[in-house]
Amino acid sequence: MTMANPQSKTPASVLTEDDLRELGLVKQYGATDVYINAEEVGWHPWVNGLMIKPYRYETKNGQSVFVLWAPQATVLGKHRHWGVVTAVTLEGDWGYFEYDWVARQGAYVVENPGTIHTLRMGEGAKVAFTVNGSIEYLNDDDSLRVTMDVFSFVDLYVKHCQESGRPVDERLFY
Amino acid sequence: MTMANPQSKTPASVLTEDDLRELGLVKQYGATDVYINAEEVGWHPWVNGLMIKPYRYETKNGQSVFVLWAPQATVLGKHRHWGVVTAVTLEGDWGYFEYDWVARQGAYVVENPGTIHTLRMGEGAKVAFTVNGSIEYLNDDDSLRVTMDVFSFVDLYVKHCQESGRPVDERLFY
Amino acid sequence: MTMANPQSKTPASVLTEDDLRELGLVKQYGATDVYINAEEVGWHPWVNGLMIKPYRYETKNGQSVFVLWAPQATVLGKHRHWGVVTAVTLEGDWGYFEYDWVARQGAYVVENPGTIHTLRMGEGAKVAFTVNGSIEYLNDDDSLRVTMDVFSFVDLYVKHCQESGRPVDERLFY
Amino acid sequence: MTMANPQSKTPASVLTEDDLRELGLVKQYGATDVYINAEEVGWHPWVNGLMIKPYRYETKNGQSVFVLWAPQATVLGKHRHWGVVTAVTLEGDWGYFEYDWVARQGAYVVENPGTIHTLRMGEGAKVAFTVNGSIEYLNDDDSLRVTMDVFSFVDLYVKHCQESGRPVDERLFY
Repeated sequence: MTMANPQSKTPASVLTEDDLRELGLVKQYGATDVYINAEEVGWHPWVNGLMIKPYRYETKNGQSVFVLWAPQATVLGKHRHWGVVTAVTLEGDWGYFEYDWVARQGAYVVENPGTIHTLRMGEGAKVAFTVNGSIEYLNDDDSLRVTMDVFSFVDLYVKHCQESGRPVDERLFY
Repeated sequence: MTMANPQSKTPASVLTEDDLRELGLVKQYGATDVYINAEEVGWHPWVNGLMIKPYRYETKNGQSVFVLWAPQATVLGKHRHWGVVTAVTLEGDWGYFEYDWVARQGAYVVENPGTIHTLRMGEGAKVAFTVNGSIEYLNDDDSLRVTMDVFSFVDLYVKHCQESGRPVDERLFY
Repeated sequence: MTMANPQSKTPASVLTEDDLRELGLVKQYGATDVYINAEEVGWHPWVNGLMIKPYRYETKNGQSVFVLWAPQATVLGKHRHWGVVTAVTLEGDWGYFEYDWVARQGAYVVENPGTIHTLRMGEGAKVAFTVNGSIEYLNDDDSLRVTMDVFSFVDLYVKHCQESGRPVDERLFY
Repeated sequence: MTMANPQSKTPASVLTEDDLRELGLVKQYGATDVYINAEEVGWHPWVNGLMIKPYRYETKNGQSVFVLWAPQATVLGKHRHWGVVTAVTLEGDWGYFEYDWVARQGAYVVENPGTIHTLRMGEGAKVAFTVNGSIEYLNDDDSLRVTMDVFSFVDLYVKHCQESGRPVDERLFY
């Protein structure tokens, strides 16, 4: 835990033997911090012209984190969330046909379990989504088209890697 | 659930009376989707010249979501997380003295429970952080300086509102 | 925060004005502790002779907590979890046809996203389940029979209350 | 996915090649279900005569699950939660000096972030606690005595194993 901070001379630590042993357990049993470089992880296609850049597939909790990018204005069909979804807007404008607001750069959105809505993205929109649990995509008559969860997104990504000859980035599964 | 989607004529729904009753319970007992406009929620100062724009203070789970902005290059002291922290990089560059990587626009970072590190942000850096649980800030000798949790961030925000005459935006507590 | 603890004379508190203001925010914006008396919340029927006693329907996160009781030995069809499920065994024996273990009083089970299994409960078994996200029940040919989430369990409970003339216990939705 | 269920002849599965590939990803990247036998995991001492039986130390999320047992009536000092804590009462009676209720077999309790209270357990009480994030134990004058998180509980357990010659049960870290 020696700090590389050039702005301070580090004084002697007051950590006890007990503290240090517990910090050793963090190393032994804990998870390390993870840094995902946006340039290194490429885009892969989804549906309706949408592109996905994966950030994290946390299969133990069922959480998917990725950037959704619409090179052209497009829609993502009516769907229902079974868990909490959050969104950070990186570029462009997007929203849902069911709501009046239009999200632009910096806007933050929380979608709660049980809600049903239809996503639209303007040309060039990029949104970082964190999806907990599964999403049900519905047909226009409200019948179920398909359910997607973290493994569905993993499948899209792994298939793309296999087809394009890119290696699967194992750091995404953490 | 009538859709305003202009691109499709909506066919008759196949939802049954049971489905509709359950959707009514979503309205009655569920939480609605929330949209936070980045322009409407202002910045308030924190420490070392850092500015905070709140996105969400989820007091039931102990989660804080906010953008951290460094108008000038600065540091945030050595600290330890007791829960998972995730970060989406909006602008500029940032990182930790303890790690080699430099996060730039689009980079995603996950910080796990138990880890200790010292944040540095380059001039103009903006990062959207989701903080679960509390954070312990440490002095240079590793003794505890202060613990912050969601209520500490609420306190910073509410105090700033009171001092500056801005109304507290109650939509942030959801 | 005066303590009723008879074993200690409480000395003067060292809490500062800042601490007290922040504790006031816990009262104002936080959630209170909740106690659910097992006797007060009754049982209601589900399927295959299984009975449910609700503990909590956390609709904001999509979490359902309830005791499942099998007055007679029974099965719950093959299903797939889309989130984490945990189980504390209160009485009797239970397990899954797909696994060798038999859970008895005190046994703890964690079921992870994506797993598929078929529950069997011995006569008199009582298990406290915490279910995150939705559950897909499958027919014998692995086609989807029905998806249940927190609102499905709320629906079962509310319908039972209406049919039996019991008031809906609003404390369960927290 | 052949089922051992003796009560049904399994018909041909309708799962497609796509479904089967995705289920393969659950095996490859997902976590398996975990069964913890209450008899196999022993008790170890904590403070004030309290005994702990570990169920799960989820270090990636900072969650600790264990049974707390009071062979003799006792108290656990005033403390503050920084995350959600839930409790299923297995035996005996327990509560907090700050609240009127007394929890008995089957009672369920949810403790929310920011709350402060002092635990008392009657002779023989056993409670299964799920603790998210850290807990701050306070002295009588409300100053901080010690902060405990999942790694503190791991430390207690590992130390006990080393002192008593029992092997560390690695299945608890999942």
